[in-house]
Amino acid sequence: MDSLLLKNVLFEGRETNILSEEGHFKCLDVADGATASTEMDCDGLAIVPALYNAHTHAAMSLVRGYADDMPLQEWLTEHIWPFESNLTREDIRRGSELALKEMKGTGSVMFNDMYFEIEQTIAEVEKSGMRALIGITVMDNHSLSQTRQKQQFIREWKDPTGGRIKLAIAPHAIYTVSAERLRRCTEFARENDMKIHIHLAETKKEVQDCLAEHGMTPVRYLDSLGVLGPDVIAAHCVHVEKEEWDILARRGVTAVNCPCSNMKLGSGRFPYEDAISSGVRIALGTDSSSSNNNLDLREEMKFAALLAKVNGDPTLLPAKEVMKWAGADSASALGVDGGEIAEGKVADCILLDLGNIKMTPCHNLESNWVYAADSSCIKAVICNGKII
Amino acid sequence: MDSLLLKNVLFEGRETNILSEEGHFKCLDVADGATASTEMDCDGLAIVPALYNAHTHAAMSLVRGYADDMPLQEWLTEHIWPFESNLTREDIRRGSELALKEMKGTGSVMFNDMYFEIEQTIAEVEKSGMRALIGITVMDNHSLSQTRQKQQFIREWKDPTGGRIKLAIAPHAIYTVSAERLRRCTEFARENDMKIHIHLAETKKEVQDCLAEHGMTPVRYLDSLGVLGPDVIAAHCVHVEKEEWDILARRGVTAVNCPCSNMKLGSGRFPYEDAISSGVRIALGTDSSSSNNNLDLREEMKFAALLAKVNGDPTLLPAKEVMKWAGADSASALGVDGGEIAEGKVADCILLDLGNIKMTPCHNLESNWVYAADSSCIKAVICNGKII
Repeated sequence: MDSLLLKNVLFEGRETNILSEEGHFKCLDVADGATASTEMDCDGLAIVPALYNAHTHAAMSLVRGYADDMPLQEWLTEHIWPFESNLTREDIRRGSELALKEMKGTGSVMFNDMYFEIEQTIAEVEKSGMRALIGITVMDNHSLSQTRQKQQFIREWKDPTGGRIKLAIAPHAIYTVSAERLRRCTEFARENDMKIHIHLAETKKEVQDCLAEHGMTPVRYLDSLGVLGPDVIAAHCVHVEKEEWDILARRGVTAVNCPCSNMKLGSGRFPYEDAISSGVRIALGTDSSSSNNNLDLREEMKFAALLAKVNGDPTLLPAKEVMKWAGADSASALGVDGGEIAEGKVADCILLDLGNIKMTPCHNLESNWVYAADSSCIKAVICNGKII
Repeated sequence: MDSLLLKNVLFEGRETNILSEEGHFKCLDVADGATASTEMDCDGLAIVPALYNAHTHAAMSLVRGYADDMPLQEWLTEHIWPFESNLTREDIRRGSELALKEMKGTGSVMFNDMYFEIEQTIAEVEKSGMRALIGITVMDNHSLSQTRQKQQFIREWKDPTGGRIKLAIAPHAIYTVSAERLRRCTEFARENDMKIHIHLAETKKEVQDCLAEHGMTPVRYLDSLGVLGPDVIAAHCVHVEKEEWDILARRGVTAVNCPCSNMKLGSGRFPYEDAISSGVRIALGTDSSSSNNNLDLREEMKFAALLAKVNGDPTLLPAKEVMKWAGADSASALGVDGGEIAEGKVADCILLDLGNIKMTPCHNLESNWVYAADSSCIKAVICNGKII
């Protein structure tokens, strides 16, 4: 049987031996002398939950630093789109490979992706040992035959990893996918028990255009189409009003906060106060390296937690809570029972080097991890009970 | 003669050999085959200017993670101050040692400090190879004999490093130092050709209290006392009105932006638009590890540049400009002719590993450094022509 024993690891302030079997935490307090098929001496290491990146376009790591510090429209239409139109399948593979290496190195074990040529990304996920929710992107400029091909692909697809990869339906956004197609995507997703991944209320312009075209805001518009439900993962949600948060919470939607991207593109500050008080599930995402410009979810936790506080409330979004956004809440939204070091949960975790300067002194492990650390503090990342 | 030759280093898009002599850049284009007392093979490395941390309390690295996510008054009075009141001289030495190691590891070659038991910090700076501007903290609760001791210390002090360390006068803030003492500090600093380091307009409360007590804002109050001048380094400046920026600019004051600390304590967003358009010199600082919680000025550059853009202008504070804040502008405020890779400037720089995932691909070196990198990308830090 496949098992992993983490020996003398610091967990909740004490040293213990943690055993996982078949990809799940089995026991957090194994007696000294126990054995497993893989053992790791964790002296001087602390265990924290792994990170789950709830909104990415992984292959866009190729575009890192290609165009920055310019208005959104100029950035997209004059730089990003022309670059993307020349990408080959091999480029997408290389971009995915790069992205996965970066995510593993910064503590993420899973990502929720939306891009093209997904077979390339899936092949890289298989090799990497990571998990992924891979979105089948839907846009109005796709032809009927392309749509049929995609439906065929989904019906015939078998996860080559035996459980680490799932497919999602990813209608890009309300301004690139018609009402009729949004309805059909939703229906197809629910028939096939798939998550729905969509951009939502990212910019002021999206809200204004939606009001002009449909007479209602993006949230109300999606709700009127029957799209919103507990299977929906909505990225950004920067321009969502107080009452709309209640709609999202009631429908069980997961809102994905992407602070770096929203700041860098000038989209705005996520409305932490309204979102948190609505009780909606909130996950954390990096968006792509073209607008961030990395896929480092630890750094994203610090940005999220600090941007929450800037307007005057330093108690908003403490370290433990933002770790839950990036951990258990993201995992749960992505369909994985993980993000916690607890018996029965999937054995995904990060081992932190307590000897690293940024982790010293260690008055509070969570606080050091969120506010002080960087990738140099990560000694190992474990996904599904395996050191990746 | 002490010289350093960086061979085949990437600089402005081309490979070159860079020579420094006696702590200054001598030639950025030395022919192959040249020699120096120290040579470094820089294949696969790019050179960027070093960072100058313009506002720190270094020894407070001891308090990293000790108290977080709570209101400012509770944080200070119930946690930080009680902790500090028990610190020994050896604690201060250890805290300084820790801070200096972290700063070197994250690309800073100099810091502008304000704390106590400065001999301990000075001894660590001497060992570290770094530069420092060390503030002599002044507060109203210091006795006359303490003040005399400090004046004596300053008159008798000789820089043990022969030029890497300077002393500054650091009246803590307008709410801890009386008008009379602020005037005397200023006079003393100008007589002795020293910089003045002060906290200014950090919180709304500071402004309100100043208005109540003196009938004017902190900037106008300091100006009325004759404090403001080109030797003044004013930390925070979060609550400075548009017309006050013009006063600061006219007086030649340097404003130090500390985004992480200001966000984490809920002090507010630095008014980038007004500050930048006033033409004032702006430097970058981390503040202490108790409110950040690290001393990583690279991370601070990303926070500064992204927080500038959040309200809707993605062109505000591009990567190159925030590098100037943390580089040449901070250096200049701290009295060092550095922060640039240019002949005649002090030979301070960072060598970045282009093979690191976060630096790949490298469409734009500055953008990668500010937006994508972390300390794992740093291969070497050079201060005063020496690898530290």
